[in-house]
Amino acid sequence: MAATAQAGEARPAFPPPDVTARPIDRAAWIAAFREVRDETERRAAPLSPEDQQIQSMPDASPTKWHRAHTTWFFEQFLLRPHVPGYRIFDERFFYLFNSYYVAAGPRAPRISRGLVTRPTCAEVQAYRAHVDRAVVALLEDAPEPALAEVIGTVEIGLHHEQQHQELLLTDILHAFAQNPLAPAYDPAWHFPAPAPAKGALALDGGIAEIGHAGAGFSFDNESPRHAVLLRPVAVDRALVTNGEWLDFMQDGGYARPELWLSDGFVAAQSEGWEAPGYWRRTEEGVWSSMTLAGLRTVDPALPVTHVSYYEADAFARWAGRDLPTEAEWEIAAQSGLDGAYGHLWQWTRSAYSAYPGYRPVAGALGEYNGKFMVSQFVLRGASVATPRGHSRATYRNFFYPHQRWQFTGLRLSQGRA
Amino acid sequence: MAATAQAGEARPAFPPPDVTARPIDRAAWIAAFREVRDETERRAAPLSPEDQQIQSMPDASPTKWHRAHTTWFFEQFLLRPHVPGYRIFDERFFYLFNSYYVAAGPRAPRISRGLVTRPTCAEVQAYRAHVDRAVVALLEDAPEPALAEVIGTVEIGLHHEQQHQELLLTDILHAFAQNPLAPAYDPAWHFPAPAPAKGALALDGGIAEIGHAGAGFSFDNESPRHAVLLRPVAVDRALVTNGEWLDFMQDGGYARPELWLSDGFVAAQSEGWEAPGYWRRTEEGVWSSMTLAGLRTVDPALPVTHVSYYEADAFARWAGRDLPTEAEWEIAAQSGLDGAYGHLWQWTRSAYSAYPGYRPVAGALGEYNGKFMVSQFVLRGASVATPRGHSRATYRNFFYPHQRWQFTGLRLSQGRA
Amino acid sequence: MAATAQAGEARPAFPPPDVTARPIDRAAWIAAFREVRDETERRAAPLSPEDQQIQSMPDASPTKWHRAHTTWFFEQFLLRPHVPGYRIFDERFFYLFNSYYVAAGPRAPRISRGLVTRPTCAEVQAYRAHVDRAVVALLEDAPEPALAEVIGTVEIGLHHEQQHQELLLTDILHAFAQNPLAPAYDPAWHFPAPAPAKGALALDGGIAEIGHAGAGFSFDNESPRHAVLLRPVAVDRALVTNGEWLDFMQDGGYARPELWLSDGFVAAQSEGWEAPGYWRRTEEGVWSSMTLAGLRTVDPALPVTHVSYYEADAFARWAGRDLPTEAEWEIAAQSGLDGAYGHLWQWTRSAYSAYPGYRPVAGALGEYNGKFMVSQFVLRGASVATPRGHSRATYRNFFYPHQRWQFTGLRLSQGRA
Amino acid sequence: MAATAQAGEARPAFPPPDVTARPIDRAAWIAAFREVRDETERRAAPLSPEDQQIQSMPDASPTKWHRAHTTWFFEQFLLRPHVPGYRIFDERFFYLFNSYYVAAGPRAPRISRGLVTRPTCAEVQAYRAHVDRAVVALLEDAPEPALAEVIGTVEIGLHHEQQHQELLLTDILHAFAQNPLAPAYDPAWHFPAPAPAKGALALDGGIAEIGHAGAGFSFDNESPRHAVLLRPVAVDRALVTNGEWLDFMQDGGYARPELWLSDGFVAAQSEGWEAPGYWRRTEEGVWSSMTLAGLRTVDPALPVTHVSYYEADAFARWAGRDLPTEAEWEIAAQSGLDGAYGHLWQWTRSAYSAYPGYRPVAGALGEYNGKFMVSQFVLRGASVATPRGHSRATYRNFFYPHQRWQFTGLRLSQGRA
Repeated sequence: MAATAQAGEARPAFPPPDVTARPIDRAAWIAAFREVRDETERRAAPLSPEDQQIQSMPDASPTKWHRAHTTWFFEQFLLRPHVPGYRIFDERFFYLFNSYYVAAGPRAPRISRGLVTRPTCAEVQAYRAHVDRAVVALLEDAPEPALAEVIGTVEIGLHHEQQHQELLLTDILHAFAQNPLAPAYDPAWHFPAPAPAKGALALDGGIAEIGHAGAGFSFDNESPRHAVLLRPVAVDRALVTNGEWLDFMQDGGYARPELWLSDGFVAAQSEGWEAPGYWRRTEEGVWSSMTLAGLRTVDPALPVTHVSYYEADAFARWAGRDLPTEAEWEIAAQSGLDGAYGHLWQWTRSAYSAYPGYRPVAGALGEYNGKFMVSQFVLRGASVATPRGHSRATYRNFFYPHQRWQFTGLRLSQGRA
Repeated sequence: MAATAQAGEARPAFPPPDVTARPIDRAAWIAAFREVRDETERRAAPLSPEDQQIQSMPDASPTKWHRAHTTWFFEQFLLRPHVPGYRIFDERFFYLFNSYYVAAGPRAPRISRGLVTRPTCAEVQAYRAHVDRAVVALLEDAPEPALAEVIGTVEIGLHHEQQHQELLLTDILHAFAQNPLAPAYDPAWHFPAPAPAKGALALDGGIAEIGHAGAGFSFDNESPRHAVLLRPVAVDRALVTNGEWLDFMQDGGYARPELWLSDGFVAAQSEGWEAPGYWRRTEEGVWSSMTLAGLRTVDPALPVTHVSYYEADAFARWAGRDLPTEAEWEIAAQSGLDGAYGHLWQWTRSAYSAYPGYRPVAGALGEYNGKFMVSQFVLRGASVATPRGHSRATYRNFFYPHQRWQFTGLRLSQGRA
Repeated sequence: MAATAQAGEARPAFPPPDVTARPIDRAAWIAAFREVRDETERRAAPLSPEDQQIQSMPDASPTKWHRAHTTWFFEQFLLRPHVPGYRIFDERFFYLFNSYYVAAGPRAPRISRGLVTRPTCAEVQAYRAHVDRAVVALLEDAPEPALAEVIGTVEIGLHHEQQHQELLLTDILHAFAQNPLAPAYDPAWHFPAPAPAKGALALDGGIAEIGHAGAGFSFDNESPRHAVLLRPVAVDRALVTNGEWLDFMQDGGYARPELWLSDGFVAAQSEGWEAPGYWRRTEEGVWSSMTLAGLRTVDPALPVTHVSYYEADAFARWAGRDLPTEAEWEIAAQSGLDGAYGHLWQWTRSAYSAYPGYRPVAGALGEYNGKFMVSQFVLRGASVATPRGHSRATYRNFFYPHQRWQFTGLRLSQGRA
Repeated sequence: MAATAQAGEARPAFPPPDVTARPIDRAAWIAAFREVRDETERRAAPLSPEDQQIQSMPDASPTKWHRAHTTWFFEQFLLRPHVPGYRIFDERFFYLFNSYYVAAGPRAPRISRGLVTRPTCAEVQAYRAHVDRAVVALLEDAPEPALAEVIGTVEIGLHHEQQHQELLLTDILHAFAQNPLAPAYDPAWHFPAPAPAKGALALDGGIAEIGHAGAGFSFDNESPRHAVLLRPVAVDRALVTNGEWLDFMQDGGYARPELWLSDGFVAAQSEGWEAPGYWRRTEEGVWSSMTLAGLRTVDPALPVTHVSYYEADAFARWAGRDLPTEAEWEIAAQSGLDGAYGHLWQWTRSAYSAYPGYRPVAGALGEYNGKFMVSQFVLRGASVATPRGHSRATYRNFFYPHQRWQFTGLRLSQGRA
């Protein structure tokens, strides 16, 4: 897929230099900014204005909205405070394209994002260009004393935009899956096969440290780095595959309540789940799946994806195994886990909560992560849709246990007696 | 508004010649066909692909869908049966663009119309051109023996398309009303002021006839023409105005349950109605209303519109008056009622039901009207959005009593002792 | 069934003397009052406190509530205005047991009736006794000038209570039908077989009069008596039977959309209807039905009941026949229709609306009927659950087209060319 | 309140002897059985059959159902497997009174529990007596080899019944709170004031052990006992009071989104929360609360109760403090925490999940706890409604973060740098 850049390329501009590096390398930051902004446009390029307009479910957002909202972020948090005399592109966009930053003012209801046909895609493109010019000018011209704060905000804005780049793909996949014609986002797209992997990585028990510290970007929810007590555990090197999932299905996995969490079985029944998300059985009984390349036959050798936590948990119980905790995953990833990144977000059995001593950062950006710390589960790794430069061992992704429109899969683990 | 042709124009091609006229005037029918098809495109012209994509509520449909569905109608009911070797534009459209004709095969769920981003507007335009060429060729070349049946289907197809032309405007108005930016469909649009009218038209009681008979097109629900017993009644010459409605509001009209049908008051409370549809009160307390020209101050002299049956009924009770029955309306209209057409559909107090002896026509087209004869009320007249040639005294429009996104208003009546 | 008095009995005290008869016969009115009040208690007698407590759906009410609400009616509209120094039984009951009389003050939400466990059944019994004593005393002692108004209110109160007597039975049947044990209200109950009837009653077309006028009680919605125009029609003498309904079912009646109103088919599908209400198919494929005597095998010779308007309409279409209008029914009933009363309420195809010139009576009692004149259909006749003295040719019952927990059936008709 | 035994009493029979004590003391087990069974009846005694019938929300159950279901448990899991020739009281009860044990067969839907009026309370009483006799006989006569298994099941059955004793009170409180009359379960009931407590209990960091091991009963979710890593923390000795909560309210606590989890604020807004559950403001602006003694003025000195996790979390954030983890709570409780038991269940910030190495027990009883380990939070301690003998430091209660009909409160904690 051209848009997600699977092919090899020259050294990328992203991630940018460490934000604490001195002197600040303005040119490198400008390159990083351009790279990320361009990547968003590359991902949107195959999509018609009609495609970019719709919101196919409340959890998803229109492509056009992703493009505008990531732009709003720079205008709201960077240009308005830092550029005297900055000409606002359109005052009304502050209301339209705020997502959930309560402290940043009133905002349009999430559910109505698909109803806003104006501004059009072309106007959003002009909005992006306007803001891009202003940001680049700011990076070029900001007085030295302000520069550290400027690049701090640029950095978070770029990571924020990368998160939306991933959502842009998962959201359009969901939208296309609703269309009886099953359109392809990119007919040449394919799921990247992980390197063959067998066996498990054994971890000793004892006190270890997880979480982010030191140089490099991280979100607030990755801190503070802190000690955890690990039990001895073995974490599978391979992701669970479609083939293994078909075994689970054939063994009645979706119909046996004893394998499921109670809420999970209710969800499976009421939603009519009998296979992973986007799977459809043809009239001949063959399973195919909606992908970014359109409808494709399910390949048993590939990792299973679009499974919810409920399903991952039931599968693990069926297999007599566990999902790893997020601490186990993080330590294992740092010890060398195959296929940790670039294929799927991997469900852990850790509920998403604050690390000991966690405090959100002050101001509107403090709404970023902390307020979602309830009823969700942590996923680790990174997926095929995650942009380059956006993966690290301490990264904490999180979704509700019923959600499955992301590229979500699993690997298993087992306690060692 | 250019699209709805408020200005005077040369003699129109629609309505077409009487379908029973002989010899059949092929050229006139081709002109009629082109005029109606072009009018649809004229109405869609101010709308971007994004605008044409969305379905802002279950009762509404996307502009693009209206354009495609009306085309499907000709392909399904005209070209497939009558043109040997006709090349189907895209087989998949039979599923996508069927609306509710169960007998015509399976169809996409109504609620998902807004999710179908492909085909794009451009592809729908090509679909229209393809079908238009085939229909014109058929009208030119159809052998004489088949021609009567062909033009019968063309005629119903054109009237069907005109209905969707009206919906196209009311649906996009609803869509734009959801947008905080309140975009204008046509900044030059204005509501046509009816000629000044006072007093009432007195009708004698006794047996009269209503319903369609004789030449000219009508829908099946207008037949058979039959006798009704009228009571002596006076029907107001003028439509109820915004000014009168403001009096009702100031008198607590929306908050006094004794004025309302029980279901109506429940609807008003649960929907938070305190004014007609699309009205908003500015911070200064002035009422404005979302129109096809965007947000406009409410003009007390104009007829009130976007009121539901529930509201019309409550207003009539507040005024100590009645809504006319559909028979009273029809007889009055034929006796010369001001502003009967071209402003608003007018609620009657007649529940929508079959005329005595009514039988739906056979085949899929028989689903047209009969199966909706429950829980709706008849509206008479025609609105500012109704295309030219689509109005007549026997026309029966119908909506549910809570609906108010159409151009719906009312006139009052009173029994004469 | 003892409670519904199927067996012959001595001359009943109800209906009471004509309210306009002079001199007013106080003793007869007291007897009528006692008879009706006792009948309510007879109907409640087989029910435990637990049975009397529950509200099995929003449309139904608890037995205990029916007993209390009918009592509240006399306290609110009779004793409070007419008995100086009347000792209110419990002030709080005015809120608890008002049903929908907005003008009579605030009231507990309908949906919560089943949650009010206190007052208990025993306390409601005491409430009834308290009010009964006061009403009888008033009927004995009211000064002559006030007496006419007093008995006017007593009369409407008694008819009101009779309506609730019918609901008491239909509501408890619904409640028992939810219980997997299928309890019997009265094991000896059976549905009364109508006398055998064949053929149809032919009515000439022309102007006729319907509605109530003259002596005897009627509700406001039966007035004014007025002229209608009848077409020539034949009304079946017999009600549609279970056997005929089984033919409809075997012919795919519930699965053929072309037989149904659009809203009706949606209801049938979403509710999973494949037979009349309360029917269940045993494992052996035999149809049985929940009745007041518990689960009973369906008898093909008996009239079909617990069918909605949607089903009745579909059946008529399947049979190539019509449902009669309410005017046709009324004229036919006065010409001698078999089984008009005492078996089932019979759906007509008339939407429930105001007679020409109808005005609700003033005051809270004016809320009685008029405010329900939307989206419902008229049923005529009277059912096995209707108390004696509560039937007449002009009586207009009404329910929504999807409702089927009442004893509702149908007879067919046909226009005569 | 007599039913919950606030006063001092002679040495209770419950908890029973340790299930591993040998020889088995049959008489002591019979006494324990009788004590628990009698306590259920004592708690039901103030309630009328009407009170015992209703289910005031899906999360609650009728008193009658609690009485029957706890009896079903003994019949299903004890008498059927262990008593040859046991006469089933009523075969149909296996369906009616199963709660969620999928492996124990089909069961009536939870939502319909309030619709089952038969069996009546009196019949349920007979059911209880029948089963009690059989259980006592089994405890007297069971052959020695089977006895260990028998008392194992009796023990879990008694703890299960105690859980329902608590629910019986919280459920009837919810039911009475729906009644505009605000009935009292026990007019003499009062909330027990905790001993005055100030300051915090300081815990050192380091490895500690939590969970159950050794003698005495515990549920499966309390095992295995395992090591955890504690950070240094101070846990408040006192519960948060109504007075402190009023400060939170006055400081705009319910209206400030920055204090809340995102899901929590949505819940607070959509449910209209502006105070703890059951609080009502009188017209004079005084807060009162629905209690088991009816409506009572809120006492600022008492612990606040009927708060959800969402509210507890917001309060802690407002106070600049934390909720303790369940490990912190357990270690603190064992170090001597005031008011740990007998007042309120205390929210911890620990999501409810499996202890490392947890495996549910085999068979239907294995459904007991494990399948609820998602989206809920752990509460520790025990409440005023918890029966005597049912509290211990390792006990893990759990509810969803929005629920607040239990006696739920909180205490705060703080990390020590």
